Amino acid sequence: MAEDGDQRALQYEQTLMYGRYTQDLGVYAKEEAARLRESGQRRAVSERSWTFDRLEYEKGRCAKCRRSGYPYVLEVPARDFISVCTVRCQKFLISRVGEDWIFLILLGLLMALVSWAVDFCIVICLQAQKWMYGGLDSNVFLQYLAWVTYPVVLITFSAGFTQVLAPQAVGSGIPEMKTILRGVVLKEYLTFKTFVAKVVGLTCALGSGMPLGKEGPFVHIASLCAALLSKFMSMFGGIYENESRNIEMLAAACAVGVGCCFAAPIGGVLFSIEVTSTFFAVRNYWRGFFAATFSAFIFRVLAVWNRDEETITALFKTRFRLDFPFDLQELPAFAVIGIASGFGGALFVYLNRLIVQFIRKQKAINRFLMKKRLLYPALVTLFISTLTFPPGFGQFMAGKLTQKESLVTLLDNRTWAKQGIAEEFDHIGNSQAWKHPQVNVFVTLVLFIVMKFWMSALATTIPVPCGAFMPVFVIGAAFGRLVGESMAAWFPDGINTDGTIYPIVPGGYAVVGAAALSGAVTHTVSTAVIVFELTGQISHILPVMIAVILANAVAQSLQPSLYDSIIRIKKLPYLPELGWGHHEKYNIRVEDIMVRDVRYITLNCCYRDLHNVLLSGNLKTLALVESAESMILLGSIERAQLQSLLSQQLGRTRRLEYIRERTAAEKKRMSVVSNADSEDGSRRAIQEVRFQISTEESSFSPARPVSQKPLKPALKRPPMVERATELPSSQHDHSGIALKNLFCASPDVEGLETNNNVESPVSPEYRRPSKRVRISVLDDGDVEDDMTLREIAEWEEKQLDEQVNFNNCKIDPAPFQLVERTSLHKTHTIFSLLGLDHAYVTSIGRLIGVVSLKELRKAIEGSVTVKGVKVRPPLASFRDSGTSSSESEATELHKLWDRHKSMSLPREHTPSESDELSQ
Amino acid sequence: MAEDGDQRALQYEQTLMYGRYTQDLGVYAKEEAARLRESGQRRAVSERSWTFDRLEYEKGRCAKCRRSGYPYVLEVPARDFISVCTVRCQKFLISRVGEDWIFLILLGLLMALVSWAVDFCIVICLQAQKWMYGGLDSNVFLQYLAWVTYPVVLITFSAGFTQVLAPQAVGSGIPEMKTILRGVVLKEYLTFKTFVAKVVGLTCALGSGMPLGKEGPFVHIASLCAALLSKFMSMFGGIYENESRNIEMLAAACAVGVGCCFAAPIGGVLFSIEVTSTFFAVRNYWRGFFAATFSAFIFRVLAVWNRDEETITALFKTRFRLDFPFDLQELPAFAVIGIASGFGGALFVYLNRLIVQFIRKQKAINRFLMKKRLLYPALVTLFISTLTFPPGFGQFMAGKLTQKESLVTLLDNRTWAKQGIAEEFDHIGNSQAWKHPQVNVFVTLVLFIVMKFWMSALATTIPVPCGAFMPVFVIGAAFGRLVGESMAAWFPDGINTDGTIYPIVPGGYAVVGAAALSGAVTHTVSTAVIVFELTGQISHILPVMIAVILANAVAQSLQPSLYDSIIRIKKLPYLPELGWGHHEKYNIRVEDIMVRDVRYITLNCCYRDLHNVLLSGNLKTLALVESAESMILLGSIERAQLQSLLSQQLGRTRRLEYIRERTAAEKKRMSVVSNADSEDGSRRAIQEVRFQISTEESSFSPARPVSQKPLKPALKRPPMVERATELPSSQHDHSGIALKNLFCASPDVEGLETNNNVESPVSPEYRRPSKRVRISVLDDGDVEDDMTLREIAEWEEKQLDEQVNFNNCKIDPAPFQLVERTSLHKTHTIFSLLGLDHAYVTSIGRLIGVVSLKELRKAIEGSVTVKGVKVRPPLASFRDSGTSSSESEATELHKLWDRHKSMSLPREHTPSESDELSQ
Repeated sequence: MAEDGDQRALQYEQTLMYGRYTQDLGVYAKEEAARLRESGQRRAVSERSWTFDRLEYEKGRCAKCRRSGYPYVLEVPARDFISVCTVRCQKFLISRVGEDWIFLILLGLLMALVSWAVDFCIVICLQAQKWMYGGLDSNVFLQYLAWVTYPVVLITFSAGFTQVLAPQAVGSGIPEMKTILRGVVLKEYLTFKTFVAKVVGLTCALGSGMPLGKEGPFVHIASLCAALLSKFMSMFGGIYENESRNIEMLAAACAVGVGCCFAAPIGGVLFSIEVTSTFFAVRNYWRGFFAATFSAFIFRVLAVWNRDEETITALFKTRFRLDFPFDLQELPAFAVIGIASGFGGALFVYLNRLIVQFIRKQKAINRFLMKKRLLYPALVTLFISTLTFPPGFGQFMAGKLTQKESLVTLLDNRTWAKQGIAEEFDHIGNSQAWKHPQVNVFVTLVLFIVMKFWMSALATTIPVPCGAFMPVFVIGAAFGRLVGESMAAWFPDGINTDGTIYPIVPGGYAVVGAAALSGAVTHTVSTAVIVFELTGQISHILPVMIAVILANAVAQSLQPSLYDSIIRIKKLPYLPELGWGHHEKYNIRVEDIMVRDVRYITLNCCYRDLHNVLLSGNLKTLALVESAESMILLGSIERAQLQSLLSQQLGRTRRLEYIRERTAAEKKRMSVVSNADSEDGSRRAIQEVRFQISTEESSFSPARPVSQKPLKPALKRPPMVERATELPSSQHDHSGIALKNLFCASPDVEGLETNNNVESPVSPEYRRPSKRVRISVLDDGDVEDDMTLREIAEWEEKQLDEQVNFNNCKIDPAPFQLVERTSLHKTHTIFSLLGLDHAYVTSIGRLIGVVSLKELRKAIEGSVTVKGVKVRPPLASFRDSGTSSSESEATELHKLWDRHKSMSLPREHTPSESDELSQ
Repeated sequence: MAEDGDQRALQYEQTLMYGRYTQDLGVYAKEEAARLRESGQRRAVSERSWTFDRLEYEKGRCAKCRRSGYPYVLEVPARDFISVCTVRCQKFLISRVGEDWIFLILLGLLMALVSWAVDFCIVICLQAQKWMYGGLDSNVFLQYLAWVTYPVVLITFSAGFTQVLAPQAVGSGIPEMKTILRGVVLKEYLTFKTFVAKVVGLTCALGSGMPLGKEGPFVHIASLCAALLSKFMSMFGGIYENESRNIEMLAAACAVGVGCCFAAPIGGVLFSIEVTSTFFAVRNYWRGFFAATFSAFIFRVLAVWNRDEETITALFKTRFRLDFPFDLQELPAFAVIGIASGFGGALFVYLNRLIVQFIRKQKAINRFLMKKRLLYPALVTLFISTLTFPPGFGQFMAGKLTQKESLVTLLDNRTWAKQGIAEEFDHIGNSQAWKHPQVNVFVTLVLFIVMKFWMSALATTIPVPCGAFMPVFVIGAAFGRLVGESMAAWFPDGINTDGTIYPIVPGGYAVVGAAALSGAVTHTVSTAVIVFELTGQISHILPVMIAVILANAVAQSLQPSLYDSIIRIKKLPYLPELGWGHHEKYNIRVEDIMVRDVRYITLNCCYRDLHNVLLSGNLKTLALVESAESMILLGSIERAQLQSLLSQQLGRTRRLEYIRERTAAEKKRMSVVSNADSEDGSRRAIQEVRFQISTEESSFSPARPVSQKPLKPALKRPPMVERATELPSSQHDHSGIALKNLFCASPDVEGLETNNNVESPVSPEYRRPSKRVRISVLDDGDVEDDMTLREIAEWEEKQLDEQVNFNNCKIDPAPFQLVERTSLHKTHTIFSLLGLDHAYVTSIGRLIGVVSLKELRKAIEGSVTVKGVKVRPPLASFRDSGTSSSESEATELHKLWDRHKSMSLPREHTPSESDELSQ
């Protein structure tokens, strides 16, 4: 008898795993338990031990696990004991594998290896180009061919490879990660294919020597790694299934991406936070630091093991003097760098967008390029590499230096032009590239800056995996160097008034310029930290901070950040940021911006209303109210759920069942007394909802074991709408007239699908309705579908008049609510905090309006465009929060619904009753 | 007539400012407008121009402002024109003053000055002590007296001064700021008095040379500055009134506090985020950076101007070699420092708490110390300074060095003990203190570490303004130095295998140790950044990061952070943090922890129910449901509101009115026909709610202008309960029997008051009910209160049976809702994100339970103590978010309520009607 109890508990737990439909499941569970008990003691034991293992796994303690396991083990034979123990120890080991820090270490290690390997390949590629170029120095034309062909081939291959394997791998990746961390599912964005495409494409693209960066793509690669690792490790453990955990891990991965790219753990964490988040959980802070530090450490250790470096140092180590890094009177010059960089950064973003929009607008070009997809990359590469050809124009802009080499020379702590003329160039290899016999070093620098500026803006539009951070960083360094050299020429003996001579260090200016320009383009302050970590010196902290802040202030007031600009170009969903200190935001209320004409469905509506509502609008979720009079908001239902409800009601299965019942009834009438219940049979079944469910459940018991496999990692959720639109095709053509009507009118489903309600992921049990339909289509093949179109239409009309049964429908019972007087500022905060897509406006429980991202965006940007200031649109990072649970809350609704439907029903469960049952 | 329209608009806007009660206010506004129109053209014009100025101010644009002003200016005389212009320009200037960046610059400037001044005074104090001590070197006893008396006097003065002026200034301030940023109002915590007490007390405390720090207090001082500055600037502008803005500014102030204390802007921002926030808005990031950078800049510039420094450099500049900062093989030693620091940090927190708890527990000691409050500081100071007396025990622990001096010597880049014996001490002044003729330098270091460890833990319990960061930092540096010197002694020629000899740099170890120990005590990673900024060198980034992360991992698994420990000691409200990767948190559901027995009131309850509910529990808010059967949650009402409702119902005013009416009726009956409406007069008034309001409004029109002054800065909100408890005292003693009964049973109100619903600040209009009561008490003094106690009791009984009129009651119409299946993890996230105190658990609109901080804390800590891991309790920083508006939502409720009360009422406003009116 005690065993019986165990069995029931086991069954009940299984049921709980997939949500509960009604209390009647308890009855089902008992039946199932009885069935199982009969099917043999042995199986039951193994099944029970499995359950215990799972429980123990959750506790994760070996000692306890053994003790609590004993009483059960005593019953079973010795062989079982051993197997149970083995399984248990295995589980224990695996549970350790599931811990966060192991995941983070693996991620860090993997990313460090990837980063190092990519760097290694890039260096080889670049060396190969140099070798080819150097070997052909007898003939300039051959040299030119070698110089130009090499990058063109590489870029074209990269573009082609990415295009073929995974077009999602194109571009930086930071805008997409920002969108994903806001809670939007981007299709195919975190797959292995994309990973391969991104890594190979990036290596080739950077190996070509084009002005492209590896930072953005590395954020994406790290996220891909995290997602794949998560998927891989979910084979062992249980927690990898959790949605919010995955988001936390993705946030850490972004930090790792930046960290291992620059060997800058702190800067990486900060940069990734600034670039991808709106609200950051300090709780997740350590994850980023831990993984990024480990990754950066391994990345640099690999360099030491490879004998590239003697010990772990910074990537672009500088050797400025420590005693007197800069004079107080040099600060205005640094401020000038900051302000100019701000304008420059805004210009860069604008230019980049302009190029994309120009190509898009010119229909002829666009059509031609769409046909010959690889032509654009090839042309751009050809153009840029022609200009940098060292014996040609490249000689005036240090064209023969790679990006890394130019950065190293720019950060050099020697002064290039003391009196306006280069002096000490002789003994340094690469710095000589900046010196031209006829041309002043200032001219070289200016040419470098101007040419690289538009080249970078152009190159980042090539459809290969590439970032813009590094090119911008180099341009900024060059600009800083220019100012520094000018200062050095102006004050040859330094500015200091006291006796000691401290000459000006132009390299310091380069550091400031690099941080300022990259900060301006990305709208981040943490480039300052990245710069310190890259150079290994923090002595210029105040100038860098001042310049970065000024650059940010200027750039943010002129243009969105590069990533936000790309988000807009790609039309990803976003939420614009409120301006700096725009206090009128505190005065706009929700009632001023909300949509008052809310589409809703009532609890006692019929399928026809549903049909009409679905036809008339294309909102992704619909409000469920008690009645049109009271308007008390009960929850929200996803459109797809309603569509699935409707397709079930009008679907072929039910029709076939109807036909079967009709024929059965006819047969009965033929043979015995005619009790004529065939016509309203279906109607009665609907009225007695409680029993209908249990029949449905039991009638599909063979389909049940399917749902016993562990939940899949929800990272890549299939969009709901897509599944719903699958339905009609799986049924026969003439199946649903009203249904077809509906699906033709369904909104266009793009590749991306917003999770309207953050906490309402599509849990597996809700996929079943569609499965069930398909299964039953196969099962019920024996019944002949002999209805005419007219009959079908009639039948459907009848079906549409029935009241909706919300039993199998997933309802979000607590959608986010605002009130009329909530200020825009607060609404924005809540939307970005919780990653909402829409919120209902209620007044004492009554639904009076709805605010969606669109309205909010309009309200913010409307006022922003008037003022012409600040259009920075960060998106919420935080998807792990919201208002509702991830599982079914059907019971209570059904109770309410039942109460509405049949007020006479005596069995009214009190809430406490049902809750006690569920524990 | 156009003017008429203007007038009405003006009036209407004024009304909007204070929320709207019902549509009838429009009528009132019209009446008021008519009255104003009659009171003279002149006044109306000036009033109108004032309104326009205010509007223009909000736009903040001078050119536009002039143009739009013209048509009105034409009507008024020239003198007015000038005055209007002056006012306008003034307003424009002031509007600029209102911008964030000006506030932040002012804050930064102020704090830099304060920090510099405090440092200056401390240096003078310490020099004075040294001078006294040095001057008396003829007599050891006199020397001892001087050495000991000086700190005792200073500490005693500091303790006394703080005690007398503002006891809130005692201690670090970071725990309190954490609590404040979570949305809890700490009384008297941000006042000018506290500011003075904190600054003076801190200067004296640090001037005494005790092992105390200035970091924590500076966070508090900066917040005080921000609050006071905010208050000051609200005299000019309008936005300083905003609650959420103040929280944003306080967050920035915390960053400034750390930043200007260490001249570490980046580390300051990060440290303040880690220490005070749970969720951080990246939007506010720049504020912190901007203000902290400016502050750090000014702080260092002041040093340059004071000729202390040649240029802006780090506070504790190090000069380690750049080429080969450390060998890869030294990393295990750094890891050891990290792990040991982790244990040390946990021990420090434990020791600190132990001392406090020991003194608290020992009743006798406690009672004695409570009487002689200054004795404990004096005794502790005497004890500590005796031990550090340089000719005494102090000689073995470098006792004569100040904190700053010891830190400078510890970070020195020379090796003290090459072969275990000090070598190069001769030419360095302060380092000599570490060298004792008889004793090894290792012994000195060990003694220093051990003695300073408990001294610091003890000293931070002295009731003066003091932090623990700096002492811990120094101890950590000493420990690092110890390991470093050991390594140097072990490997005299460095570890490197290749030819070149790179000797070990013990100073680098000191840097690592300092970061690791302070990171362990405060549970932060950003001490790493602070260390880089303090030393001006980032070359040891990887060892520092590794050590800090390891130290954090160890310390967080053993003890809460020092600040959280203090929060618990002080019994401030807090929310414990979820463990690192405790995945079972994903499996606990709200239904497992919620309280099912919810106290609620129904919409149609009578005052007696209210009375009973208030008597039976002491929850701060009560749920309002539609009815006991439906249990549909309509909102929540604060306890104080209900108390005020009850006191109004049973208050003297109403009774006097009743008496007056009775006498009037009696008189009437005496004179003319008796129409006997006196008895149910009051009842009718309640039934016709709509009209009752407008009468109340108009009857107190003289009280109206009071509310026209701008809203006060809501930073220091008076707790609601206090106001409510004021009421009975303002009435006469024998006024309310049931009422007195109630207030005796009211919960104990401490100095702090949680804002249960973040978005429901006490907006001014809700203060009026109490005001109104008091005013009318004065007005109605002419009626004689001739009722006997028995009559009063009878009258009260009758009153209690009436239905509650929720019209004047502030209802939060959208309290936060969870559902049963919400996981603990998500609940925690939501609570900390939104700074909630409690949330209702609903199921399709029906209230089924409530979860408060208490339950959540129990659920988290219950499981945590079982596992014995991680009890870090960060509190949400973010108060600027929640679920409801800050203003009245009464209209809708009243409609609903009216509908319930009198279903026959034909006038039913549709939501759209009322909303259109409000625009």
